[in-house]
Formats: sequence, C-alpha cells, structure tokens
Amino acid sequence: MNLTLESLGTGMDTVWVVLSAAMILLMEGGFALLEAGFVRYKNSVNIIMKVFADITIGTLVFYVFGFALMYGKDAGGIIGTSGFVLGGDLSHLQLPVSLDTYWLFQAAFTIAVISIVSGAVAERINFRAYLLYIVLMTGLIYPIGGHWAWGGGWLTKLGMQDFAGSAVIHALGGFSALAAALIVGPRKGKFNKAGASTISLPSNLPLASVGAFLLWFGWFGFNAGSTLSATDVRIGHIALTTMLSAASGGAVTLVYTLFRYQRSDAPSVINGSLAGLVGITAGCAFVSDSAAILIGAISGLLMMAATSWLEGRRIDDPVGAFPVHAVSGAWGTLAVGLFATDGGLFYSGSWHLLGVQALGLAALAVWGFVLTWVGLKLIGLLVPVRSSEEEEEIGLDISYHGIMAADRSHEFIDHEVRYSMSEEHRNV
Amino acid sequence: MNLTLESLGTGMDTVWVVLSAAMILLMEGGFALLEAGFVRYKNSVNIIMKVFADITIGTLVFYVFGFALMYGKDAGGIIGTSGFVLGGDLSHLQLPVSLDTYWLFQAAFTIAVISIVSGAVAERINFRAYLLYIVLMTGLIYPIGGHWAWGGGWLTKLGMQDFAGSAVIHALGGFSALAAALIVGPRKGKFNKAGASTISLPSNLPLASVGAFLLWFGWFGFNAGSTLSATDVRIGHIALTTMLSAASGGAVTLVYTLFRYQRSDAPSVINGSLAGLVGITAGCAFVSDSAAILIGAISGLLMMAATSWLEGRRIDDPVGAFPVHAVSGAWGTLAVGLFATDGGLFYSGSWHLLGVQALGLAALAVWGFVLTWVGLKLIGLLVPVRSSEEEEEIGLDISYHGIMAADRSHEFIDHEVRYSMSEEHRNV
Amino acid sequence: MNLTLESLGTGMDTVWVVLSAAMILLMEGGFALLEAGFVRYKNSVNIIMKVFADITIGTLVFYVFGFALMYGKDAGGIIGTSGFVLGGDLSHLQLPVSLDTYWLFQAAFTIAVISIVSGAVAERINFRAYLLYIVLMTGLIYPIGGHWAWGGGWLTKLGMQDFAGSAVIHALGGFSALAAALIVGPRKGKFNKAGASTISLPSNLPLASVGAFLLWFGWFGFNAGSTLSATDVRIGHIALTTMLSAASGGAVTLVYTLFRYQRSDAPSVINGSLAGLVGITAGCAFVSDSAAILIGAISGLLMMAATSWLEGRRIDDPVGAFPVHAVSGAWGTLAVGLFATDGGLFYSGSWHLLGVQALGLAALAVWGFVLTWVGLKLIGLLVPVRSSEEEEEIGLDISYHGIMAADRSHEFIDHEVRYSMSEEHRNV
Repeated sequence: MNLTLESLGTGMDTVWVVLSAAMILLMEGGFALLEAGFVRYKNSVNIIMKVFADITIGTLVFYVFGFALMYGKDAGGIIGTSGFVLGGDLSHLQLPVSLDTYWLFQAAFTIAVISIVSGAVAERINFRAYLLYIVLMTGLIYPIGGHWAWGGGWLTKLGMQDFAGSAVIHALGGFSALAAALIVGPRKGKFNKAGASTISLPSNLPLASVGAFLLWFGWFGFNAGSTLSATDVRIGHIALTTMLSAASGGAVTLVYTLFRYQRSDAPSVINGSLAGLVGITAGCAFVSDSAAILIGAISGLLMMAATSWLEGRRIDDPVGAFPVHAVSGAWGTLAVGLFATDGGLFYSGSWHLLGVQALGLAALAVWGFVLTWVGLKLIGLLVPVRSSEEEEEIGLDISYHGIMAADRSHEFIDHEVRYSMSEEHRNV
Repeated sequence: MNLTLESLGTGMDTVWVVLSAAMILLMEGGFALLEAGFVRYKNSVNIIMKVFADITIGTLVFYVFGFALMYGKDAGGIIGTSGFVLGGDLSHLQLPVSLDTYWLFQAAFTIAVISIVSGAVAERINFRAYLLYIVLMTGLIYPIGGHWAWGGGWLTKLGMQDFAGSAVIHALGGFSALAAALIVGPRKGKFNKAGASTISLPSNLPLASVGAFLLWFGWFGFNAGSTLSATDVRIGHIALTTMLSAASGGAVTLVYTLFRYQRSDAPSVINGSLAGLVGITAGCAFVSDSAAILIGAISGLLMMAATSWLEGRRIDDPVGAFPVHAVSGAWGTLAVGLFATDGGLFYSGSWHLLGVQALGLAALAVWGFVLTWVGLKLIGLLVPVRSSEEEEEIGLDISYHGIMAADRSHEFIDHEVRYSMSEEHRNV
Repeated sequence: MNLTLESLGTGMDTVWVVLSAAMILLMEGGFALLEAGFVRYKNSVNIIMKVFADITIGTLVFYVFGFALMYGKDAGGIIGTSGFVLGGDLSHLQLPVSLDTYWLFQAAFTIAVISIVSGAVAERINFRAYLLYIVLMTGLIYPIGGHWAWGGGWLTKLGMQDFAGSAVIHALGGFSALAAALIVGPRKGKFNKAGASTISLPSNLPLASVGAFLLWFGWFGFNAGSTLSATDVRIGHIALTTMLSAASGGAVTLVYTLFRYQRSDAPSVINGSLAGLVGITAGCAFVSDSAAILIGAISGLLMMAATSWLEGRRIDDPVGAFPVHAVSGAWGTLAVGLFATDGGLFYSGSWHLLGVQALGLAALAVWGFVLTWVGLKLIGLLVPVRSSEEEEEIGLDISYHGIMAADRSHEFIDHEVRYSMSEEHRNV
C-alpha cells in the first residue's frame, strides 16, 4: 500500500479513537466492580447484571436510533434526524475518522451515562423496570440532551464548552440518577425509626477499589480520546489535567477525613478521586495545571458535602452517584466558565461563558431529571418500579437472578433446588 | 532522527500491534478470573495456576518451536519448517512489522488457545498431566492446525477466511476442550445417582464478571489488532462489528432467560456476551453491521443450546468452554460463508466459500479433538490424567498447591502446618 | 489542519507515551490487588488506601518539586534545579513530546516506586507516618537518585545503562523497602517463640493474581513506552524480551516448587513472574532473546533464595518487596553489564560497563536504604512509625479506616456503631 500523509493521519486517528473507546468500555468493568463492592452482598450480582444490561441493550438501542437523535442532521436545534442504524446522510459531521469508529466511541460514552444511574437505584429497583429505563436513557434522554450540546443543537450554537462531558455525561446522568433515587425511594432500613440515616457496609472494598482504578485508567481514553485526533496538540495537557484533578480530589478527601474523623475513609477517598475525574472532564483541554488541581480539590469537598446533604434529606443513593457525578459534574461545567484560559471569567473578565455554562448545565440537569421522573412514572404503569418488600429482603440476586454472588459450599445441588433458593435463603 | 513516511508507517504499525498484543495478554487475567469465579471455591487457585502455566510455559514452548511449525517456510501445505527460536529464514512472511513484534502478537493468540482448554478440565485434571498437555497444545496441535489456515498451508491455499480465529483459535481450542473433558470424565457428583445433571454454584460471580470485561476489552486487540497495520481502513468496522455482536449475544441471553425462566441468568449472560465475541471473530472484517448483530444473537442462543446438549449427554464442562468457543466458533466460521460481503452465499449466490469454510472448520475441529484425545492418552502413560478421588474431594488448591484461595483467620501458622493442611481441611 | 511528517511524528509519540503512562498507572490497581490479596484480611483496606495515598499525594508532590529535582537543570551532577510546578527552563531536556506528556509518564514511574515500599511495611506501619514517607520518597529520595542515573547526573555521565529502571525504580525502591521493613520490625507473631518464621495465608489469591496480570499488562507500557518515541525501532524487541523474561521467571518457579515441594506454589509463581519482569527492565532494549530468558530464570530463582534469606534473618517483608524488586532489580542491572550486546562483558570482553552498572546499583541501593532509614527515624520524632499493639491486633482496617474489607451481614448499622467497631471486632 502506498503511504501518504493523509493515510497515516487517518490511520493514527483511527487507532487512537478505537483504543480510547476500548478503554472507555473497560470502564463498564469499573462501574460493575465499584458498585458491586459498595452495595450489600445480597445485591451484588444484580448490580453487575444491570451493567451487563447497560452495555448489551444500550449498545443496540444507541445503534438503532439513539445515535441518530444525537448526531443526525439537526432539526431546530433540538434533535437529530438522520443516521438510524448508521444509515442516511451524516455528511454534516465531517468526521476525522470513519463513521464506524466515531460511533463506537460515542456508544462507549452512552453506556457510561446509563451506568451512572444504575448505582443510584441499586438494591431496590425492579429489574424489568430498569431494562425499560435503559431503552429510554440510551435511546432518548441522553441522545437528545447530548444533541443540544454536542450534536449541533442550541447549546452548541450558544457556545457551551463541555470537552468530554462533565455536563452532558455526568450532570445529565447524575441528575437522572437523583430523580430515579427519589422515585424508587430509600432502601428498607436505610433511615431508621428515628429518621436518622444508617450505614450499609460495603460488601467488598478491594473489589470497589479495582473498579476505581479501572475507571481512572479508562478516563484517559475518555478525556484525551475526545480529541478524536492523534495529532491534536492538546492530548498531553488533557492527560495531565486529568491526572492532577483526580489526584487532588482523592488527596483532599484522604486528608480531610483523616483530620476530621481521625480515620482516612476508604469510600470517601475512592469517590473523591472519581469526583476529581468528573470535575475536570469539561475543562481538561481548557484550563491550566493549577486550575485543574483546584477543580479536583473542590470536587472532592463538594462530593462529601453533597453526600451529607442527601443523607439529611433522607435520599438514598447507595454508591454516591449524585454526589460524584451530578455535583462534581455541575461544578466542573461551571469551572470552565471561571478558569478557561480562553473566555473564562478569571482570564477574560467576561461573565459570558460562565452564563452559557450555567444555562447549559441547568438545561441538561433539568432535562435528565424531568425525563427520568416522567419516564419512570410511565414505566410504573407497565411494571412495578420498586422491588417488592420480599424481593428486597431476600436480596435482588436471588429474587431476579436466582443465584448468589459467591458460594463456598463445594457441593453440587439439583437444578430445582437452585430455583427455589429464594425460600431457602430467606432466613440466612 | 529523520522521519519518513515509511518510518512513521512502521512505527505506527508496531505500536498498534504491541498494544494489541498487550491487550490480548491481559485476556489471560480475564480467563483466570472468569474461570476462578465459575468453578467451586476449593479449585480456584488451581485454575489460576493453570493460566499462569499457560502463559509462562506456553510462551517458551511457542518461542522454541511452536512458532516455527506454524509460520515457518511451508512444507507440503502441512507444516512450517523454519523460525525455531526465531532464527532461520522467515522472509516469506513479508511482515509489515518486525519479527519480534509479530511473534509477540502470535504468542498472545497461542496462549489464548490453551486457556480455552483449561476451563473444560477444571476441578479434576491432574496438574502435571496438564503441564505436559500445554507443551503439546502450544508446541504442536495449535501451530500445525494454525499453519494450515494462517501459515500458508492447504487451507490458506483453498481460500479459507478466518480473520481473527473463530475456527483457528476458538473451534480448534473448543473441540480440543471437548476431547479433554471426555477423557478426564465428569467431576464427582456432577451427575447424581439418577443420572441427572446437578449444578455447582459459581464461587464468585463478581470476579467472573471482571474476567468477562477484561476479555471483552482484550477482544478489540484480538480482532482489530489482527489487521497488523494501523493504516488498514477496516479497523473501525472491525471494532464496530465486534461490539455489536458481543452486545447482541449478551442481550439475547439476558432476554431469553428472563422470559423463559423469569430470571436473567448471570452465567448465561456472561457466556452469551463471550459467545457473541467468539462468533464474530472470523467475520469481523468481512460482514455488515446487521450481519454482526445476527451472528451475535445466534451465537448466544447456540451457546445455550449446546450447554443443555452437553448436560443431556452427561459431559461435564464446568465453565462452558465447548458451548462458548467450539459451538459459537464453528457458527462464526460458517457465518463467513453466508454473510461475507465478498463471496458469502447471501451476497454472491455461490456456495463455494461456505464449502471451504465448512471444510476448514471440520479439519481444524477434528485435528484438535483427535490430537488432544491421543495426546492425553499418551500423557496418561506417564502420569495419571485424572485427579485421585481424594485430591478432588479435598480440592485441587490444597492437593496441588498446598493453599486455599482465601483466608480470614488473621492467624500465623507454622510452615509444617501449611503442608499438612490437606488433612486438616478434608472435612471442612 | 495541515499534516506534516513532523506533526504526525509528534502526534504518534504523544499518543504512544500517554497510552503507556495510562497503562503504568493501571499498575497501581495491580499493586493494590496484589498486596491486598497477599496480606491478611484485616489489613487489606489499609494497604489499598496506601496505594491511593501513593497515587494521590505522590502525584501532587512530584508535580510541585519532585520532578524539578529529578529532571531540572543539573547542578553538580547531583540534583536538578528547575521545573518546579512544571515552570522554569527545561529546554535542556530536548523532549520528543510535550512537557506535559513527559511529566505524566515520569509521574507514573514515581508512583510505582513508592508502591514498592508499601508492600514491605504492610500490616504494621502507622498510616500517618506512611503519609509523611510518601512525601519524602516522591519528593526527594527517588527524584535525587533518579537524577543521578536518568536526569543528567553523575551516573548518566559515567554511562550507566538502565533502560526502564531495574536499578532506578526497582532496586532503589526495593532497598528502601528493606530499610523500612527493618525500622518497623516484623509483624507480631511472624516469628514464633522458637524464633522460627511462620506463614500468614494470603487473604485472597485470586485477587492477588488479577493484580499480577494488571502489572504484567502495564509492564509493556513501562518498558516499551520508555522509548518515548513510537518510531523507535527497538519497541518490538523490548516487548519481546519483556515477555520472555516474565514467562521464564514464572516457569522456573512453577517447575522448581513442583519438584522441590511436590506442589507448585502459587505465591512463588506470581512473584516469580514479577521477578522476571523486574529483572529485564534494565536490559530489555539491550539484550538478546536468549539472554532475556536467562535473566528471567535467574530472577525467579534469586527471588526465591532472597525470600528464604529474609526469613532466616527474621526480616518480615509480607509481600516480598525486597526479593522481587531489590534482588531481581539488582541482578537485572548487573545483567546489562554481562549481556548487553553493545558493551556487555560477554560480547565486548570489557569489564567497564559491568563496573559502571555495579557502581550505579550500589549508589542507588545505598541512597534508598540510608535515606529511608534516616527519614523514618526523623518521621518517628513526629508520629509513631509502628502501629500500636492494639491497632495491629484489631487490624489496620478498623484502626485507621474504621471499616472492614468485606461485609456479608446485609444489615444497616448506625453511624456511631461504625466508629466504635474497633471494640466490637476485637474478638472476631
């Protein structure tokens, strides 16, 4: 084959985007472990199955129509209208890589959004209701909101800056998670008779930690890969700000809990690092090193404050989806308006960009929240949204999947026994 | 250094292939966890040690002579004859990357093949017999079969199309796994006195899930990396079809078990996704998006059917190596003959390619099955192939490795105690 | 954008280094799991929190001043003097990639060094003391030692060859680990009343294995990424020697323990593979295939011998940091002097390079050992270096983090209860 500058450039971009997409998809393994490690043991298979549902069903839905609504030819700044099953006219995208490559990268993002919600409804959502919600989120809520900011819609036109999705992915996902947590209500026993919040101990912190490290790894694909081009000179800086903010978010929670409670709190440090990653996602390409450190630190602290706020309001979010994704994502979106070296308030003296960021953030948060609320209400007409008391008490693993996360009995059992284990384990 | 189009092209290809190889090698971590999570607790260290044996011993064997038999200068369409310890004339390969780079990629494939077999003989093969079998598989069975299809042998000449190895890797590995499962026989207690199959609960489903996500991640290196060139314009499409087929295989098993058994079955969904990945491996570069979705869905369903078939035949395959790798691999190989846009029956109207695919599949499946059967019989003359009843009952972890997978006692014990734990744990 | 050979070359190098850095950072997940799996259950959260502290605090310290001391403008061959918070004149570096990109890669290395030490002091170091030590290591000890060999210091000038850090990373880290292990002393009960060594069983071998596979994966970024250039023609060979040495180190321990103890010992095989990786790190770009195999095999055997030696000396190194990193690292450094095809004793007949290697190794080992010893003594003036007897008995997870690694109770508990769990779990 004859090499040309163009063929080399396209090849490089393709390889870069495909590898980044693979790294983002590995984040599903991260979500699965993080959430499985954080929830109670009896619901850990269920939450992993939710992630498998996200990636399998979400991929197909986004392929059939989600992508078209997000990146198809713009209609009125509101919605895309071409590209169903990757067919039709998509020439307006002017892609640096092939459509297939671009789609894979976008699909990986989509699956991340729905996985954010899965954590907030852990341990008590009805599995069938969740499957329907996946279709809604990956086919409608995220694609349309995403179209506004990234697909040439009205927020694109206003000049909103959200490099890799603090708003589009994390705030939208996180506010959807809040609505979903409110609809399904708190887990039985989460708030005791006196109304005070209680704690469920993580079923497996080492597993949750692996999850966090996989997410951290994937985030380099998430942020730096969003350049979509290997010759983009910002790649190194993006990777650097991503690292600094994550480190800062984790360090601040580690030190804060050490001095405040005399004990460095493991779940806080894990979520603090993730909050730092979420916070820098919008601005990774636009802010300086020191701004990245500040953004990460504030993300970590806001995450802790939001966690307390939720508990005080008796809202149950088992893995911290709202504090990590919505709150840090919102902060990161606004931080672009403050710290962007091109247009940020502290550099330009102009409030314009900050205003646009606030407007875009509000629009995406409200859109996610309202559509999820209405969507789950509608789904509730078809199938109960909340697990039954019995299902919840037995545990969703037995109730919905007929299996427990782990077994050490070394014994073989008959097939019928397995499917009647609900009875057997009720009093375990 | 002076950059030229050629030096950039070679650099890009090298980086692409090395990263792909690293991703494929990480799949060994995936195999280890998937299998350790699926087998009973008392045999989980043993199965991980088998994977370590695959990667350590397999690498060395393939380096010394396996690679030469597979990719050396062709003799009669049957076997390679040069390249032992990477020396000798290998100019016929006309590699786009350095020989070292190419070898690493091929070694990663080889180790995947032997790891397929390790699952099928889990929980009852004698460890020393397995070590000898590794030499046989990575030094002889796979290299020679691989030579036929990929090394310039008779199947290459007939025009067989197996892009990344549904036949060469998965069907060959899967039929070898079947032979091995038959030779070692079912685990004690797997089929009860009435002859009915029983179930052993997975020792750790979250771990098995991490395994699946690592395999999924590595598969992008496996399939897209098989281009061996970063400027190959098919990379994006390969990654896309790989994703769609995996999603489809997982989705179909999720929905099927939900409606059939009222419970989405976790092990089935995990294996369904893997079946989708196996099924698309031959055709990832040759078929359309919609064909990929169909191939994945059928892979998932065939995997479930084959699982039932095995149980009915009283063949014990603890992690589903035959259903996932042999059956989906066979289907994927034939599917190229149906759906390949260049030469497939549904596009060209010609049965030629399908015939070649069927012939190649049959040859590789029979080769793997027969050589494994004969090989294990011969190995049985040196060392028992099957664990003793006592070893099996105690568990292979204690029997062969003098250790248990996990300990929560917090106690120190004396050295002698550790090596007499077999006694101690017999009645645990 | 107009593509040029230069823009393509820079883009490729950037992508290559960023992806390599991400892979090295994922090794932190590997360290966390390896160590959490090896230590006793009651200390597994603590060791993971140490790794989180390494990556979060270490990153910030290295950003603020560590990097400057290592790669800043050389003063007297001893120390760097520019580049604090990545500012100032760093033009002497003549980087092929952007400063941000280069820094990220170097930061990933730094965090690896401190993570080596975390294993040796597992299960009994005071958490606050460890936090202070992180600042010392990532801000001072490693940067200054690193400056000598890699930053243009006196060892650079002498011609020491340490491609990816058998000496700079592993021997320096490993000898620091030895000093730290001596200062904190053995775990309570590790040596019984008769003075004989006892064994603590790994809390979770499957987790430790995932850790090893993640480390193995990351090592390809570690070694091959150290070219810092995607067009470096050595990349393929580096990846090959890395693979061969790892396989050889693992295979030799697998076979040795099988014949010596009749049982392939899982922790030995895991550490044997890692020893092979450590051993080849200095010479991966300089030695032949067969030398790589030999280096790996000897690394594995030396690791085993060093483990016995430590036990005989009643030095307690819970995860084998000294045998794996210091001993194999030292051997790997010297092996360059023997096997380097350019200048090694066996090729050139000259003892010069071997002498330089020995000198450099000695300097770095002594530097790490002495500074760690003195540093921990000084830290001991501020805060106890060793956990109290009670903290150690309860377990560091409860003592320092108020939480256990895993919970299967399915129950919610009150907030106050969590923080008084130390009492509750004392007699568990």
